[in-house]
Amino acid sequence: MEKLYITSLQNPLVKAWRALKDAKARAEQGLFLAEGDHLTGEALTAHAAAALLIAEQEQARYQRHLDAAQGQNLSVYVLSDRAMGAVCDAKTPQGVATLCRLPQLHQPLPADKLKIAALDGVQDPGNVGTMLRTLDAAGFDALLLGAGTADPFSPKALRATMGAVFRVPVYACDLPRQLAALAQTHDLYAGALDGKPFFERVRTHPGVCVIIGNEGAGISDAVYAVPGIQRVKLPMAGGAESLNASVAGAIMVYDIVRLGK
Amino acid sequence: MEKLYITSLQNPLVKAWRALKDAKARAEQGLFLAEGDHLTGEALTAHAAAALLIAEQEQARYQRHLDAAQGQNLSVYVLSDRAMGAVCDAKTPQGVATLCRLPQLHQPLPADKLKIAALDGVQDPGNVGTMLRTLDAAGFDALLLGAGTADPFSPKALRATMGAVFRVPVYACDLPRQLAALAQTHDLYAGALDGKPFFERVRTHPGVCVIIGNEGAGISDAVYAVPGIQRVKLPMAGGAESLNASVAGAIMVYDIVRLGK
Repeated sequence: MEKLYITSLQNPLVKAWRALKDAKARAEQGLFLAEGDHLTGEALTAHAAAALLIAEQEQARYQRHLDAAQGQNLSVYVLSDRAMGAVCDAKTPQGVATLCRLPQLHQPLPADKLKIAALDGVQDPGNVGTMLRTLDAAGFDALLLGAGTADPFSPKALRATMGAVFRVPVYACDLPRQLAALAQTHDLYAGALDGKPFFERVRTHPGVCVIIGNEGAGISDAVYAVPGIQRVKLPMAGGAESLNASVAGAIMVYDIVRLGK
Repeated sequence: MEKLYITSLQNPLVKAWRALKDAKARAEQGLFLAEGDHLTGEALTAHAAAALLIAEQEQARYQRHLDAAQGQNLSVYVLSDRAMGAVCDAKTPQGVATLCRLPQLHQPLPADKLKIAALDGVQDPGNVGTMLRTLDAAGFDALLLGAGTADPFSPKALRATMGAVFRVPVYACDLPRQLAALAQTHDLYAGALDGKPFFERVRTHPGVCVIIGNEGAGISDAVYAVPGIQRVKLPMAGGAESLNASVAGAIMVYDIVRLGK
């Protein structure tokens, strides 16, 4: 296997990879970086990788990743610890990372996606990543990203996905418009303080979409205004006014899983 | 109202408060620091405060906190921006914080706590704080902290609680021993890959305890070995092997809320 050794932080590839911590650079390069042993394994399994980056001292430890990279005819770059540290976002990099192809996010939503979640301005990358992980576990079909939602391909969001980003398709969209189109075929649930009890819902469409709002402001007025939106709430018996965004989403998603509808 | 002005980072009080970022200093001083507008409001409402810290420029903005502090006869310290920045953990401090009395965590669990959750080595402060927030919303009665679990009174955990730490009582304990005692009165649920479907459980005791394991290793062998523990699992239809710890806990807690048992 051909390996390219890189030690200098001035190497143009290192400069390009470092920039991938920012969304704009990811879009420009069509790449994102999956850091660490677990995400690298998931990226290689999903055949989403473009190249493998490995720290010089870690080649023996991650031989299975090197074998997988060779099997997929990927470029392999061996980096000095300093170069690896510069490229990775993690404070203590694990010594392996994978350059992955960034999916096209602005595709139309296919009609066969029946179980959907939508993020309406969810700002915390950890919440976005955790939602993707939950949807993956629950066997949901797609995640819609509305305006103001954190990028699922940032280092922090990727860590929280635990690899779900390679399995659950993500669609960036004009969310009110997309939901208006879905209302013909999907029950649309949006949390609201004055909503009806979610656990007593009656399903009327074959599809379902759970909408999760911003951590502070909740669901946007533009989404509430979509005809067909159902305002729902979870029981709050205690003193808390609300739940964490990814927790509220997960409770709704898994109650749909429980009922099979 | 008497106010003490503090500007120097060498002031012994500033040194003591800075140290509260560490669990050992919190235990030694019997205090923790609730940072920011929201947590300060919750601390004052709960009458858990020992003193109010406020940045000099923010006194007009937080007049209601100053009024509450006066009503409770609390000490008020007015800090320079630099002193406030040193004391607070947040990167951009909000200019107000409350010194709170640290509860005694090593108390025996009262017999009237019927709806309980237990953390068995949950390491991430965000997960610990999020669980407390969920328990508060769900109207659960107590949280048990097993060995190796992150401290709910660290700055990061406190932020995730959104104030639930002032409402849900927390008990540090020898978890296997505590669970063995609870088994006479509580159904004990622990997640396991080979477990029975949680959604099909049959309740046999008046009380319930949902046990959440470590983010990587799951439930400990010592907890699994407790007589009466029920190994349960949530459905995983998709490709994910597991859920985020606080998400899995919330799904179980809210399914108990849904059934009222």
